[in-house]
Amino acid sequence: MALQNKKVSDAVIKRLPRYFRYLADLKENGVLRISSKALSEKMNLTASQIRQDLSCFGGFGQQGYGYNVELLYNEMRKILGVNRGFRTIIIGAGNLGQAIAKHAKFEARGYFVKGIFDVDDRLVGTSINGIRIRHMDEIDDFCSKESIDVAILTVPREITAEIADKVVALGIKGIWNFSAMDLRLPEEVVVENVHLSDSIMVLGYKIINN
Amino acid sequence: MALQNKKVSDAVIKRLPRYFRYLADLKENGVLRISSKALSEKMNLTASQIRQDLSCFGGFGQQGYGYNVELLYNEMRKILGVNRGFRTIIIGAGNLGQAIAKHAKFEARGYFVKGIFDVDDRLVGTSINGIRIRHMDEIDDFCSKESIDVAILTVPREITAEIADKVVALGIKGIWNFSAMDLRLPEEVVVENVHLSDSIMVLGYKIINN
Repeated sequence: MALQNKKVSDAVIKRLPRYFRYLADLKENGVLRISSKALSEKMNLTASQIRQDLSCFGGFGQQGYGYNVELLYNEMRKILGVNRGFRTIIIGAGNLGQAIAKHAKFEARGYFVKGIFDVDDRLVGTSINGIRIRHMDEIDDFCSKESIDVAILTVPREITAEIADKVVALGIKGIWNFSAMDLRLPEEVVVENVHLSDSIMVLGYKIINN
Repeated sequence: MALQNKKVSDAVIKRLPRYFRYLADLKENGVLRISSKALSEKMNLTASQIRQDLSCFGGFGQQGYGYNVELLYNEMRKILGVNRGFRTIIIGAGNLGQAIAKHAKFEARGYFVKGIFDVDDRLVGTSINGIRIRHMDEIDDFCSKESIDVAILTVPREITAEIADKVVALGIKGIWNFSAMDLRLPEEVVVENVHLSDSIMVLGYKIINN
């Protein structure tokens, strides 16, 4: 069961959190074992798809016995870094940044918010979920003391590239980007975009063409 | 330039809002024409990819002259329904629902919030951006009077399926779903998911494996 995740495709990677979700549900419902067929029906995938996906990470299934739910759930936690944990900052304490800071579920997934930053004097000094909002001027000092893995960017589009460059220089490993802007970053930093406007426009396209 | 968008792949559909964004920027910067090569460099796609994508909708380019930015921008608006507009409700006025209701950009994309619904007595009767939060009890009446296209669901996971069934019965055409739950809906209703937890977990996977 060694991790063999060298050449895992983007499509498989995108499905990993879905496995995590479904396995967490099964575990919570007391299910001990599940066949790839039963899991495939729940997840709306084919059984062979599931076997292929999981084979990227060493398999986990026993022919004829299906998957051990708890074991597979625990492996999925490791694969996704839930146990490892990610020290996280949020930059931009507007409506969206606040909503994210208040969303308890991210902590259960391993994302621990260590700092929140903004430049708005009405926000700086106030707290969200017990975390004080700091001025952006403090970010260099903060990041040199705390070892931060992830920066969540909920800042205006115009300054996103500049802020991204700043956190890259501060040694951040990954950016979760909510600005409607495609960032180009050095190879040592990964980015995951949540382009909300893009998503709702895809919905509109599908409505028109359904 | 008739729309020939019968068999447009999901990958192409997902790129359409990006075309919209880049063309809006070009237009705003006063660019009149752009070659597929120059556009491809901006968008980090290949020129042939762009030509193929746009050929799904009739082409728009003139050999050797490139694309007329304003014309292509206007076509993209039509393709994505920006001019048509979508009458929208938000169900769930918690942190995320409020952040979405306050996000002015969705209106510029054609999504007009006509109503916001919740069951929390502390929220019902208050307003966000001038829109009064109504109790869920009022949703049947509201939807029978207003012709609503889109429901944005920012409700707890446990009740998402139930609420989705409800808005489907009320004649909604599309659901923008923020719950970490994959909805199964009748064919006449489309869904676009924003699974935030999935997205941040993909980031974590990429950090570990970068």
